Amino acid sequence: MPDIHFEKVALIGIGLIGSSLARVIRRVGLAGEIAISTRRAETLARARELRLGDSYHPDAAEAVRNAELVIVCVPVGASGAVAADIAGALLPGAIVTDVGSTKGSVISQMQPYLPENVHFVPGHPIAGTEHSGPDAGFAELFEGRWCILTPPEGTDAGAVARLSRFWEHCGSTVDIMDPQHHDMVLAIVSHLPHIIAYNIVGTADDLETVTKSEVIKYSASGFRDFTRLAASDPTMWRDVCLHNRDAILEMLSRFSEDLSALQRAIRWGDGDKLFEMFTRTREIRRSIIEAGQEIDVPDFGRHVLSHPHKD
Amino acid sequence: MPDIHFEKVALIGIGLIGSSLARVIRRVGLAGEIAISTRRAETLARARELRLGDSYHPDAAEAVRNAELVIVCVPVGASGAVAADIAGALLPGAIVTDVGSTKGSVISQMQPYLPENVHFVPGHPIAGTEHSGPDAGFAELFEGRWCILTPPEGTDAGAVARLSRFWEHCGSTVDIMDPQHHDMVLAIVSHLPHIIAYNIVGTADDLETVTKSEVIKYSASGFRDFTRLAASDPTMWRDVCLHNRDAILEMLSRFSEDLSALQRAIRWGDGDKLFEMFTRTREIRRSIIEAGQEIDVPDFGRHVLSHPHKD
Repeated sequence: MPDIHFEKVALIGIGLIGSSLARVIRRVGLAGEIAISTRRAETLARARELRLGDSYHPDAAEAVRNAELVIVCVPVGASGAVAADIAGALLPGAIVTDVGSTKGSVISQMQPYLPENVHFVPGHPIAGTEHSGPDAGFAELFEGRWCILTPPEGTDAGAVARLSRFWEHCGSTVDIMDPQHHDMVLAIVSHLPHIIAYNIVGTADDLETVTKSEVIKYSASGFRDFTRLAASDPTMWRDVCLHNRDAILEMLSRFSEDLSALQRAIRWGDGDKLFEMFTRTREIRRSIIEAGQEIDVPDFGRHVLSHPHKD
Repeated sequence: MPDIHFEKVALIGIGLIGSSLARVIRRVGLAGEIAISTRRAETLARARELRLGDSYHPDAAEAVRNAELVIVCVPVGASGAVAADIAGALLPGAIVTDVGSTKGSVISQMQPYLPENVHFVPGHPIAGTEHSGPDAGFAELFEGRWCILTPPEGTDAGAVARLSRFWEHCGSTVDIMDPQHHDMVLAIVSHLPHIIAYNIVGTADDLETVTKSEVIKYSASGFRDFTRLAASDPTMWRDVCLHNRDAILEMLSRFSEDLSALQRAIRWGDGDKLFEMFTRTREIRRSIIEAGQEIDVPDFGRHVLSHPHKD
């Protein structure tokens, strides 16, 4: 029995993150009852088929009734609407959290609706894959990853501690951060990479001189890496762009400035400058591997997975 | 016994590609003798320790003597110097090929030195990892990948056919292409992705508002994907940028144009346009997986490799 247990947890939204939470909550025994709500009838039906919870509700307010922990797992643009829906049904003293990739916007959308007598502790597990929906989740998704909590000033410390223990039992390490700083950090480590990946895949798709079939055939030379991020959920990423606009525009403008300098070095054949730019980036991958945030095998282990008996 | 066999093959350069070739040539039995030459004494010594070949030569001309097949595996900027070194020692009728990522430049560097009585068939295996050096190679590197040959007009068809069979025995499928078209295709599928990856990793490294430790900790949210390409060999990529300049500048300018449009959609909150841009890119990854050029597991199989017994 873990040292944290909720009689009832409500998951609002049952995509990759929500369904991974359902699975790990069940496996670890973090809740007596899991209530699931999602707007689309077929997604709710699928969650039921997968036996992800104990009860299934088209109406989010029904799901949160008597829940000690409510986890909102919807695209960030839908956070305000969910808060409005559930506000009147929340159990006094409940912890309300979310898993959205932007925090400033989620707070400003949700906080106005939430009653004084609940503990609002916004959160963001730094974990995911390019797949989405209730079938895509798995219990190990959060293992070895970080989870960032951004409690507004004055939040009950006990509620933050309980939510932290919850995430630790899911396999994560918790960091507490200011929401604005979170949004700046995520703009560079997550939002910009996704936007750049979407963009380059779009550029390749539009060429007249190079056919789509050539792009596909020769993609192992680099391009295919970008297609993973560019295969992520478009609704989620539209919402991220709309809800972390300022930080993203700031990072985009720095990226473009740097790219212009690199372009100039290429145009003028400045080999020393190119060599210097291409050298300093190696170390950062080494650090990421050492920090346990990346597997230590070349080519993401693709050859290991395709040739499991390689000598 | 394969249906193609060379009495002697010379490998000039013994990095990732050269050493992978040495291993697959040995395994499949494609040559009676493998002669290895590389400029740096310690790399040559390491190749010897790894028993990658049958003879080891600081002087490339010594290595190619009597070789029926000569494969130049050096950064593209060194191709001309290698051609000058080996020209006088080449066996009449030998096939001379390379593995460089740019073809127009390699042809214009090498062809002037090569005697009329050898068959020059430039090549480019579309395979690699972010690691380099003789320890990084492995025999399966070329399995399931494409190899592009760009023989100049008038090249002996028999020589092209023999080199094609050679690559097929290494596990690859061969395409014949015009060198200029090769350089355009590779600019988008390989050179631009590497340049963009180097650039974004550099941008992240330079921020004052976000610490390097934060970039590393939260890199699983997208950034870490880019660090793989950005960990590639800086000498190789400096040379690619210097030797495929025009095609790269053309692709960079299209990429930047598209990025400006995306940036504008973010600035003006154009959700429909963002959604449309983020939707059309999903299909291309599906096509790459179906074409056998990518593994069909989420997140590059990182969770499979970290949790091999996941249920």
